[in-house]
Amino acid sequence: MPTPPHWLVERLGLFEKLWAVQVTRLASTARKEARTIKVSLPGGQKVDAVAWNTTPYQLARQMSSTLADTALAAEVNGESYDLERPLETDSDLRFLTFDSPEGKSVLWHSSAHILGAAAEQFLGAVLCRGPSTDRGFYHDFFLGKERTVQGSQLPILEQICQRMAADAQPFRRLEVSQDQLRQLFKDNPFKLRVIEEKVTGPTATVYGCGTLVDLCRGPHLRHAGQIGGLKLLATSSVWRSPGSLEPLQRVLGISFPTPELLRAWEAQREEAESRDHRRIGKEQELFFFHELSPGSCFFLPRGTRVYNALVAFIRAEYARRGFSEVKTPTVFSVKLWKQSGHWGHYRENIFALQPKGSDPARHPTETLALKPMNCPAHCLMFAHRPRSWRELPVRLADFGALHRAEASGGLGGLTRLWRFQQDDAHIFCAPEQLQAEIRGCLDFLCSVYAVLGFSFSLSLSTRPSSFLGEPRLWDHAEQVLQQALEESGEPWALKPGDGAFYGPKIDVHLQDALGRPHQCGTIQLDFQLPMRFNLQYKGQAGALERPVLIHRAVLGSVERLLAVLTESCGGKWPLWLSPFQVAVIPVGTEQEEYAREIQQSLQAAGLASDLDTDPGLTLSRKVRRAQLTHYNFQFVVGQKEQSKRTVNIRTRDNRRLGEWDLTAAVQRLLELQNARVSNAEEVF
Amino acid sequence: MPTPPHWLVERLGLFEKLWAVQVTRLASTARKEARTIKVSLPGGQKVDAVAWNTTPYQLARQMSSTLADTALAAEVNGESYDLERPLETDSDLRFLTFDSPEGKSVLWHSSAHILGAAAEQFLGAVLCRGPSTDRGFYHDFFLGKERTVQGSQLPILEQICQRMAADAQPFRRLEVSQDQLRQLFKDNPFKLRVIEEKVTGPTATVYGCGTLVDLCRGPHLRHAGQIGGLKLLATSSVWRSPGSLEPLQRVLGISFPTPELLRAWEAQREEAESRDHRRIGKEQELFFFHELSPGSCFFLPRGTRVYNALVAFIRAEYARRGFSEVKTPTVFSVKLWKQSGHWGHYRENIFALQPKGSDPARHPTETLALKPMNCPAHCLMFAHRPRSWRELPVRLADFGALHRAEASGGLGGLTRLWRFQQDDAHIFCAPEQLQAEIRGCLDFLCSVYAVLGFSFSLSLSTRPSSFLGEPRLWDHAEQVLQQALEESGEPWALKPGDGAFYGPKIDVHLQDALGRPHQCGTIQLDFQLPMRFNLQYKGQAGALERPVLIHRAVLGSVERLLAVLTESCGGKWPLWLSPFQVAVIPVGTEQEEYAREIQQSLQAAGLASDLDTDPGLTLSRKVRRAQLTHYNFQFVVGQKEQSKRTVNIRTRDNRRLGEWDLTAAVQRLLELQNARVSNAEEVF
Repeated sequence: MPTPPHWLVERLGLFEKLWAVQVTRLASTARKEARTIKVSLPGGQKVDAVAWNTTPYQLARQMSSTLADTALAAEVNGESYDLERPLETDSDLRFLTFDSPEGKSVLWHSSAHILGAAAEQFLGAVLCRGPSTDRGFYHDFFLGKERTVQGSQLPILEQICQRMAADAQPFRRLEVSQDQLRQLFKDNPFKLRVIEEKVTGPTATVYGCGTLVDLCRGPHLRHAGQIGGLKLLATSSVWRSPGSLEPLQRVLGISFPTPELLRAWEAQREEAESRDHRRIGKEQELFFFHELSPGSCFFLPRGTRVYNALVAFIRAEYARRGFSEVKTPTVFSVKLWKQSGHWGHYRENIFALQPKGSDPARHPTETLALKPMNCPAHCLMFAHRPRSWRELPVRLADFGALHRAEASGGLGGLTRLWRFQQDDAHIFCAPEQLQAEIRGCLDFLCSVYAVLGFSFSLSLSTRPSSFLGEPRLWDHAEQVLQQALEESGEPWALKPGDGAFYGPKIDVHLQDALGRPHQCGTIQLDFQLPMRFNLQYKGQAGALERPVLIHRAVLGSVERLLAVLTESCGGKWPLWLSPFQVAVIPVGTEQEEYAREIQQSLQAAGLASDLDTDPGLTLSRKVRRAQLTHYNFQFVVGQKEQSKRTVNIRTRDNRRLGEWDLTAAVQRLLELQNARVSNAEEVF
Repeated sequence: MPTPPHWLVERLGLFEKLWAVQVTRLASTARKEARTIKVSLPGGQKVDAVAWNTTPYQLARQMSSTLADTALAAEVNGESYDLERPLETDSDLRFLTFDSPEGKSVLWHSSAHILGAAAEQFLGAVLCRGPSTDRGFYHDFFLGKERTVQGSQLPILEQICQRMAADAQPFRRLEVSQDQLRQLFKDNPFKLRVIEEKVTGPTATVYGCGTLVDLCRGPHLRHAGQIGGLKLLATSSVWRSPGSLEPLQRVLGISFPTPELLRAWEAQREEAESRDHRRIGKEQELFFFHELSPGSCFFLPRGTRVYNALVAFIRAEYARRGFSEVKTPTVFSVKLWKQSGHWGHYRENIFALQPKGSDPARHPTETLALKPMNCPAHCLMFAHRPRSWRELPVRLADFGALHRAEASGGLGGLTRLWRFQQDDAHIFCAPEQLQAEIRGCLDFLCSVYAVLGFSFSLSLSTRPSSFLGEPRLWDHAEQVLQQALEESGEPWALKPGDGAFYGPKIDVHLQDALGRPHQCGTIQLDFQLPMRFNLQYKGQAGALERPVLIHRAVLGSVERLLAVLTESCGGKWPLWLSPFQVAVIPVGTEQEEYAREIQQSLQAAGLASDLDTDPGLTLSRKVRRAQLTHYNFQFVVGQKEQSKRTVNIRTRDNRRLGEWDLTAAVQRLLELQNARVSNAEEVF
């Protein structure tokens, strides 16, 4: 451990001095203001406490020792509170534990401080910021223009953090004036900039813990010992702002109140990694990527099979639900995107292209764009001839390939691509049809997710402050959406002000088999596009009226949903999606021809099958291999089966289904495939 | 009619002077060289004739007056000959009539001369060239930089042509020296350039007919009266060469030996126009075009239905035939096209694009290209991991959207597009598998065309003079293709030297219901791409070997085949392709709900159906309307049908199929749809 730099020593000295002053001042206040106050606890219990003396921690201990151990911070009259900070007035009090997002946030934020302390001590880092995130925490700091954090340094940093946690260093909250603040951070240009820009009142708070003093609103843990397990995960260089050149170093980590929880998380992460769709995609030969077409996926035969099965599923639903599939172009004049407004709001994500042909008769000379979405093309389609109220609702669905420019650093697997397809549809309807359409959209969503085996929750995002259009229309639409949500019987949350400027929306957050959230489907109202494209229909009374537009998608990006599905089923595909439906296994070489015939029958019926004629393996090894490859079924054929034209069927879970007539077995597989059951192996 | 310009008067004067000299010279030759010669006639007949005296026309008259009337020119010892030109030596003689392509060519070429004469007289045109084409003739001429031919001038030009034909002006062949040639055309810069570039011998021929004298090899009609019917069809401006700015005026026409043939052609053209896929596409609401995406088609719901049915048909064949569908990106780095060689040979047709994004992290900076074909992507796919002989043949199929830059003037309907899809597949196989694969490809072609109801013929194009690769490999491949063609039992023609530089090919020429030819499918060997992508597989002996690549398509461009199909069936779709499968017609308003229920059952089963609840029409008018719209079936439901849950079925040809149980009727429709029969209405 290097000698601490002089500025750190100075800062700590100043902190201790100010701390002593505050301790004296607070003790005096505690004496002067010691009157009885009322505290309401969760569950309705009310207790007496002493103003400027009683702390939330003391009350937690009164309630139960478990609570005292697991509480990480408190919420007092709606404000975040350190557990050791005395209550000042009558209070509504709630304790924050690791079970709640707020509790996680406290533990992870405090862990970021610990990490900052370790970085100052071990690396001489100039700290920038260290927040909690949805999945842990990180700290950004500066090591000079040339230095970066090496992966090999992470274990050492981690050990320092763990030792500080073991030492149970207390978090100490100190109120300071602006001058004192500048004095404390006079050697840190980042903090000075933050003070300049953000600190507006006469005082602010800093927290001390171990050797770290940091500008921070809190709340924090009582002491670092509440961090029972901590792991540093990764390091990277980041640029603080697009304009600035200095690279900051970012170290990411996660922590838990107990070592057991850390171990459980590590096990789950391992499971998730073994289910990573990129790994499974490679192992099962579903898809690959190539530098000659970055951001676009090459779907191999097996991946294409899964892809097509998903699309066929949605197509069948379209037929049932009165949606009409259409096909629209890939490339449009940039004029279209100016008309739709995307050129103004979404330009950075549009692949604009300047044709480079030498022959002006062959190549257009105006700027073109690869379509990032289908809606403007569908508006052109609605508008291509006069429409009547009798035709409404018009429901146009499109699987066209979309291209969106994403930062290439963010590209990865199927979840972030330049090129993808959506199960995109646009409903043009009369305002009075809105309710029935939204109900239909929700029913569509629910029934597809039920087949895919996803649980999900819904949210309604309403009018933002900068909305366009008539408030009356918004109010009506939001009511319609809310009513449909309530009727659906599914859980939903309100996100006030979170709608797009052009209309309110319902978002679908699905949870995969590992409980991870994904935002996929959406139902989005749009009052703007119908105006921008001057869409009209002849109303029942004869006058021209404006339709309402609903954007909707159930799968969202087919590619991303494929990633979620791949990881969710861990490569063990349900029969109807499976690229490994049947392995045909002859017992001996005499049955090879019959086995080949079976495989051809399966293929001709559209079933994915492979033949294992490897002479080097025993029958049981071949069956085992097919099961490990996750073939839903194995058709084993020996002499008896050949003579009777039957197959002996096993499932990938090694259930023996016995001897079946070949034609009947194929028929049964097709039935189960068409019914899209999730457990074909059990119900065969 | 304006006074003829001075140069025309001068040219005609010179022609007449030279003609008189030639007449004298030939009369002298005829006297001097008058010996007996042998002439072999078609059918083996041999007759005596007199050298420099007897003309083919005289012999035709000896044979039959019909032949004398219908013969347009002759072929003498393989050389084209005017009928009035005396034979010079022993000759093999054959007469050319309008039934043969050569005969048509003579009539149309002579008609182009007549048109030229009319343009000189009426418009003061400076003639450029006037050839015959596959479908008639045209003449290009110059009217000054600003003047064009107006559509309203066509009838006048046509009348002048018809009068010249009625006058039966003779075609007179004159042999002239180079000096005389320059003298004749001293006022026509186009002809002077042609004389400079093309006339290499000491003499050349010109033809006179009426007021026209033109440089021409012939042969021509005896006289313009042999043109029994002539029609001018269109006018347009053309640029003679990409570099030149002067616009030439082109007038197109067609002609026939008799007025009856012209009338028959006009009737057929009317029929073809009524079947024009653009007209039917609009009437049936199959597709439309929009200026914001030129060269790309917008497929409306009904067009998409036909499109998807075609693709599903090919997909089902792929499953039966061991092809694997894949999905590859739309946009590639231009490096790919350099590697494949398309950048060198095909650059003008590639949409190369310079990304215009402002953020280099989001947008690639190198030149990209929209793929014009799938083969290079499939080569990347073959090469993405090591391959073994056990995997071969690998058959990769792709319906990906392709973009090819065509001259925008040539865009029209679905036959010429910038964006289209193909039923494209690439077979990677070992050389010894070639024969079986080609046989499989031919079988695939034949069975698809049989279902589509097209008759077709095949052609084999062999090694061109500038081929790449080993002659031994070419010989073997051509033998394999030839043998497969012979085994197929289908008619085929040899086109020696017509193969691509990278391999021999089989082309498929299909004939639609109107007997018009279309080039759609292809089977193309490629020895070059496997080398350019260094494709390899581990052979049975363990060494790395090079696969052979077969490009193949059955439909070719799905869009173009859709155009052919649309015109071929004239909008009366076979059930399996039909976007008008069933019209549900309630007898009265009381049956509307039951009718709606039926329509929903049909839709849910994936059948295209519409409901006719128009209260303003009688039942029989509604049935008639449905039949005129070409709904394959009409389901009529009255009180009786409602109570028994049946439907009363009629076909679009007004056959009455009687009362059917609803479920059974739906089942039967699905059976017939899946069997892809062409006559579901007859076999229901």
